[in-house]
Amino acid sequence: MQFLPISHVPVGSQDLLAEDVRLLRRIHAAWYALAEARGYEEVIPPTFEYEEVFTRGGGPELASRLVRFVDQDGRLVALRADFTSSIARVAASRLASAPVPLRLCYAGKVFRQEAAGEGRRREMFQLGAEMIGDASAEGDVEVIRLLLDTMHAVGIADFQVNLGNVEFVRPLLERLSFEEAEALRGAIDRKDRAALAAAVAAGEIEPGAGRSLVELPTLIGRGEMLIRAAELAIGESASSAIERLRRIDRLLTPAERAHIVYDLGEIRGLGYYTGIQFEVFAAGAGRAIGVGGRYDHLLALYGADRPAVGFALETDALAELLTQAAQR
Amino acid sequence: MQFLPISHVPVGSQDLLAEDVRLLRRIHAAWYALAEARGYEEVIPPTFEYEEVFTRGGGPELASRLVRFVDQDGRLVALRADFTSSIARVAASRLASAPVPLRLCYAGKVFRQEAAGEGRRREMFQLGAEMIGDASAEGDVEVIRLLLDTMHAVGIADFQVNLGNVEFVRPLLERLSFEEAEALRGAIDRKDRAALAAAVAAGEIEPGAGRSLVELPTLIGRGEMLIRAAELAIGESASSAIERLRRIDRLLTPAERAHIVYDLGEIRGLGYYTGIQFEVFAAGAGRAIGVGGRYDHLLALYGADRPAVGFALETDALAELLTQAAQR
Repeated sequence: MQFLPISHVPVGSQDLLAEDVRLLRRIHAAWYALAEARGYEEVIPPTFEYEEVFTRGGGPELASRLVRFVDQDGRLVALRADFTSSIARVAASRLASAPVPLRLCYAGKVFRQEAAGEGRRREMFQLGAEMIGDASAEGDVEVIRLLLDTMHAVGIADFQVNLGNVEFVRPLLERLSFEEAEALRGAIDRKDRAALAAAVAAGEIEPGAGRSLVELPTLIGRGEMLIRAAELAIGESASSAIERLRRIDRLLTPAERAHIVYDLGEIRGLGYYTGIQFEVFAAGAGRAIGVGGRYDHLLALYGADRPAVGFALETDALAELLTQAAQR
Repeated sequence: MQFLPISHVPVGSQDLLAEDVRLLRRIHAAWYALAEARGYEEVIPPTFEYEEVFTRGGGPELASRLVRFVDQDGRLVALRADFTSSIARVAASRLASAPVPLRLCYAGKVFRQEAAGEGRRREMFQLGAEMIGDASAEGDVEVIRLLLDTMHAVGIADFQVNLGNVEFVRPLLERLSFEEAEALRGAIDRKDRAALAAAVAAGEIEPGAGRSLVELPTLIGRGEMLIRAAELAIGESASSAIERLRRIDRLLTPAERAHIVYDLGEIRGLGYYTGIQFEVFAAGAGRAIGVGGRYDHLLALYGADRPAVGFALETDALAELLTQAAQR
């Protein structure tokens, strides 16, 4: 028999061997030990689920990147694209009558479609946690603390968490069309003060909100900055958003605060989050290596109307940082 | 918005929670500690691969049960159906020039299509090991020993390994048509002496082999049985097959021998294996919970012509046995 050589895996997939496996196992061991000590129970959801589980909570961006196929019963299924959706489903079904708060954690692969040739992975390892059924600032702090301690536990000390609260910005965008809001979100994300000033000059946004919007790119810093932000809050929910961040700041220890930068332009997850939102940056990684926040309305989409807060870290990015550090 | 309730996972899939997860993690920890101590390196292959990887070595039965879909590049891919195929591919590609013997191990999910309603899992956890590049009886014993010690390490003491050598039977079937051989294999598997005697009487098999075939169902027992089997061996390869088993028996310790039952009718994997073959049975499990043997021609299909021996255990079955034991 003649065979073509077999030596390839599909684009974006990879074999993990030797050192890479050992590093992954070390990260997982540190993560599970810490999460277990804090009362977080691991959940291992199926590798593929009915695609609806992921499209329901994940939004159009995630939906467009699902790795889908038709199951034997003719229904559309998708490889796990994120753990939060699967855990929301579990919380709304098997754990619907379990006492709250539920503390759940996970580590494993997620799968996302990439355009061929982009060179990005389609199989990625993630680890993370969700606390379900606690709406308090103490709940926010518990999850932030777990995140900070995870970074230390895996051996990464030089990192920063950009922490915002989407409720500060949301009122500023409320009366805009979808397109206007998207353009403004882009400008906020880029911290593009000129574009924000132009939008204000064009009369696009609510009278009185102009100064808040133009100042938004400067509302970044340690706890003191929150005092100035409070003066710029438009309406009650924006004021509460700042009050919440100030309360979190008080609950954190000085060592924890050293990793936190408050950033009120941190609104990546505006459509999804309902309170605090954060991204994790580390020296040596060119982009955020983790994300999280509060999503009090997400679980209702799955039939369990409960507040929730959580985070996810990109395990591969953690491994890469540790490999870089070992090579220095 | 109105949603249908989400509370289901696809048929044959499941969520693992709490105790089930802890048990799985305990089994994995014991397995990795043991395998690592014996020099076996973990490999984590992609979750889906080009389907050819699985059809090439897996045979028609496995091919018919692949969970397939079309990848973004238009090629057919399949969820990992067994680890041995993926590891054969790795051994023939990235590890093609690594020094032998290669000692590789794994633990994770495999995916197999089941007819709906059969109630069997489509996601199963397996763990196992492959030793590549060593054709010796010592290699056989190393892998058998790793299997025995794995059972003890996870906490299962009451088990038995039925160990045969497909080269004892292969000469008896050589001149038969495919259908005749299949019928005879079925009779051997059922230990159906009457059917075997009928086949001999019908003149189907090689003159002189009749007695061996009729006696086959009785060729089961401890090491002493191998002496009688040697007398019934037809041809050189059958004699070598018995000699190999006798050598293995001498290399095993008395405590190890206590778990071994030689069974020359153990030919489940006749198409795949080329030497020893075994199945693992445990008190409380109604079927084999593990399988293994030597497959010296398999890796050539992937472009790396090397002898190999290995085993796979069904992790879910191990977990079930441990749960039963805890409940007694």
